[in-house]
Amino acid sequence: MPRHPVSYVAVDVAAFTIADDELVVLVVERGVGPFRGALALPGGFVLPDETLEEAARRELREETGVDEPVLEQLRSYGAPARDPRARTVSVAHLAVLSEPVSPVAGTDAASAAWRAVADVRRAGLAFDHEEILDDAVERLASKLEYTAVATAFLAEEFTLAELRSVYEVVWGRPLDAGNFQRKVRASLDWVEPTGELRAAGRGRPASLFRPVKSGTAALDSPLVRSSW
Amino acid sequence: MPRHPVSYVAVDVAAFTIADDELVVLVVERGVGPFRGALALPGGFVLPDETLEEAARRELREETGVDEPVLEQLRSYGAPARDPRARTVSVAHLAVLSEPVSPVAGTDAASAAWRAVADVRRAGLAFDHEEILDDAVERLASKLEYTAVATAFLAEEFTLAELRSVYEVVWGRPLDAGNFQRKVRASLDWVEPTGELRAAGRGRPASLFRPVKSGTAALDSPLVRSSW
Repeated sequence: MPRHPVSYVAVDVAAFTIADDELVVLVVERGVGPFRGALALPGGFVLPDETLEEAARRELREETGVDEPVLEQLRSYGAPARDPRARTVSVAHLAVLSEPVSPVAGTDAASAAWRAVADVRRAGLAFDHEEILDDAVERLASKLEYTAVATAFLAEEFTLAELRSVYEVVWGRPLDAGNFQRKVRASLDWVEPTGELRAAGRGRPASLFRPVKSGTAALDSPLVRSSW
Repeated sequence: MPRHPVSYVAVDVAAFTIADDELVVLVVERGVGPFRGALALPGGFVLPDETLEEAARRELREETGVDEPVLEQLRSYGAPARDPRARTVSVAHLAVLSEPVSPVAGTDAASAAWRAVADVRRAGLAFDHEEILDDAVERLASKLEYTAVATAFLAEEFTLAELRSVYEVVWGRPLDAGNFQRKVRASLDWVEPTGELRAAGRGRPASLFRPVKSGTAALDSPLVRSSW
């Protein structure tokens, strides 16, 4: 198809986890131009023999060593001048990890680090990665309403206080504990009690829960932001 | 960036409307190979100076003459061998029109036509366009739950029976009229009465409604499929 314009196709990954009650995102410091020295989301060009999702998983694996994160396509970004070198379309992905895995030494990983989303926004990001980050945070906040994605931030078993904390961190506001507990217990189709208790530091031991379906399965009983 | 692999970047558009109480999609018959003679979603390569959305709007305009459809990005499809000619990533878009505008004579439009989704699935589509069509229908069915996108299928003013018909056609099942009316009237944040009535063929005149926000604005009071 020589008469058609060609592009470079890249993937970028907005990978989130929670650390110290803050939403943190994996960023790399660019060692080369353009935007040398600036922060960016990890990413790279899609290889000839891999799918878009495989490319995104490879990029994330190279940075974190994590093999099976919750990961989905976010959207594609294709403004003509978004990369000053050449027309490059980025297929952005959203990933959620249950803990801030230490970035491993990989292709670009010397400079990879988990940073609070608020700090990253202040520092700024290369290319159109601030737009990708904003869209990813909004997608995440929205998916908390109608999927079980909140559980991807947690260990396999968790208390309702831990689950509520994910909502509070991503939505950026405190939620009433009793009301949250009632809503979740009224719709036990996405999390269920394990039957076990975890001893709390003080007060009563807390019931442990686990996801009914892991990952991003759609749920019928959403927790809607505006109803809080 | 000569050491990186290049791709062709295309847009494909799954454009829907409702005709004769059926969900119909715009398809073209391919006049050239690969898949010569097969049906396909309208689409084409992204030009150097346009964004992905501009390319999708241009392709749809070339087929239908419609300038401002409700249109959004669906997702990107990038399996290595999805186009037998060369690596081509397709950024698929979803569009909704209020009526089956007659396809106009354009680049490929001689063969463009609105066809029932069920028929198109039976006939099959070129490339991975069946997967794109399935994803688009599912996105549409899902967005009916939490957005006002149903109103994009209708004229500027509509009755609740017409609105219900959109849900019935896209979800593929009848909905109880009284229950639907109650749910919509209980959440007048996405449609509102105009105060006018439309004379019905028989029976009482029906109240007319209009969208509060047009298009795909997110809504707080979803109609959830599973609750029917």
